[in-house]
Amino acid sequence: MSRLEIFGIIGLPEFRVGDDLATMIAAAATEVGTPLADRDVVVVTQKIVSKVEDRLVPIDPTDPLSHKPLVERESVRILRRRGELIISETVHGFVCANAGIDLSNVEAGYAALLPVDSDRSSRRIRDGLRGKAGVDVGVIISDTFGRTWRRGVTDVAIGCAGIAAVIDLRGTNDALGREMQVTEVALADEIASAAELVMGKSTNIPVAVVRGLEAEWFRTSSIADEMIRHPADDLFR
Amino acid sequence: MSRLEIFGIIGLPEFRVGDDLATMIAAAATEVGTPLADRDVVVVTQKIVSKVEDRLVPIDPTDPLSHKPLVERESVRILRRRGELIISETVHGFVCANAGIDLSNVEAGYAALLPVDSDRSSRRIRDGLRGKAGVDVGVIISDTFGRTWRRGVTDVAIGCAGIAAVIDLRGTNDALGREMQVTEVALADEIASAAELVMGKSTNIPVAVVRGLEAEWFRTSSIADEMIRHPADDLFR
Repeated sequence: MSRLEIFGIIGLPEFRVGDDLATMIAAAATEVGTPLADRDVVVVTQKIVSKVEDRLVPIDPTDPLSHKPLVERESVRILRRRGELIISETVHGFVCANAGIDLSNVEAGYAALLPVDSDRSSRRIRDGLRGKAGVDVGVIISDTFGRTWRRGVTDVAIGCAGIAAVIDLRGTNDALGREMQVTEVALADEIASAAELVMGKSTNIPVAVVRGLEAEWFRTSSIADEMIRHPADDLFR
Repeated sequence: MSRLEIFGIIGLPEFRVGDDLATMIAAAATEVGTPLADRDVVVVTQKIVSKVEDRLVPIDPTDPLSHKPLVERESVRILRRRGELIISETVHGFVCANAGIDLSNVEAGYAALLPVDSDRSSRRIRDGLRGKAGVDVGVIISDTFGRTWRRGVTDVAIGCAGIAAVIDLRGTNDALGREMQVTEVALADEIASAAELVMGKSTNIPVAVVRGLEAEWFRTSSIADEMIRHPADDLFR
């Protein structure tokens, strides 16, 4: 495979609690002339999943720190604090700023929590797309995380279904025929980052489609099981 | 912008010291029917840049630890050690495993060091492509780094020219018209990750082209100046 296409799904409405994401995404993709196809990967931003799953929590819009108690509640361990910034391990196992809670692209007076189980949410969207649109696709739910040592945020996968989270190249030979050193590639994170390039941050494109990925990467998958590093294997926790 | 195309440049030869990367990349892109165009971003893997820049160092092929003294020499600070793994800050300012030195896709008996100045190498390739092929493109040199807290490696940018490393969305409004919280996006890292999806790890595709990025992202740039986080701003060093 040496060619990939990524397109943003424009024209989606503001989402509300209980909306059927799969039906709306399939319809919008068809509307813009790029109907979903088997082996597409549909990347959905966390924010709209949190909205339809009723993960918005009222906060005091006049108090810029009113979401901080939510951050503590959604965390199992605080790693660092600096000023208003909290880096913590969330109840889901992610390590990120402010427990993934944020206030942008959410109505004033509300904070959006992460989905309870983003792998399950991904499976639900994937099953919905199969049922409603008859396509067998991978689904990734993406969110925007900071990193250590490098400035700038990138989009990563917080949930996935039907597309590998991590692919293991251990033991495959490199181009010179010797066993490779690099082992596991964070495929779902790379797909989430690629999708972000067409989503932008201030435009209303919460869904992107990645077309042309290797057939063998499509399989049962989970961010929680494959991507989250066990604290005991982690040198920076 | 809501559509992006990424294609790998197949058919490139093994590279040798002194090879003219720009000429060879432009020729190969034309050969496969996708000649380079203005506002393409050409992503080049570190390994071939290190080869043409004579950054291969002989090591004892019978000793699996013979590159370790090189790791120490290329590092200014060791952050963590576990077994054979060293996480260090390199002379270039990167924090990564084994100072970015690796042995895969390199002839047995050699280790490939990172380019001395990957931003400068990127500028050289960009200037070469302008001179030889008459195209005004961005160039990114990519390498494969691990991350904290998440399993799997992703490709990141270690050098760039003509395409922003970090884009600053501070102060732009979100889709609901309020000022955004998320500020700086690591654009060059996201592009490097996207390109990796068509390169694979064991196939001989060391160059990919990303077409369709926002016109405003093309400008003078530097990974060293924009992307590397100052140690004083870093909570995990």
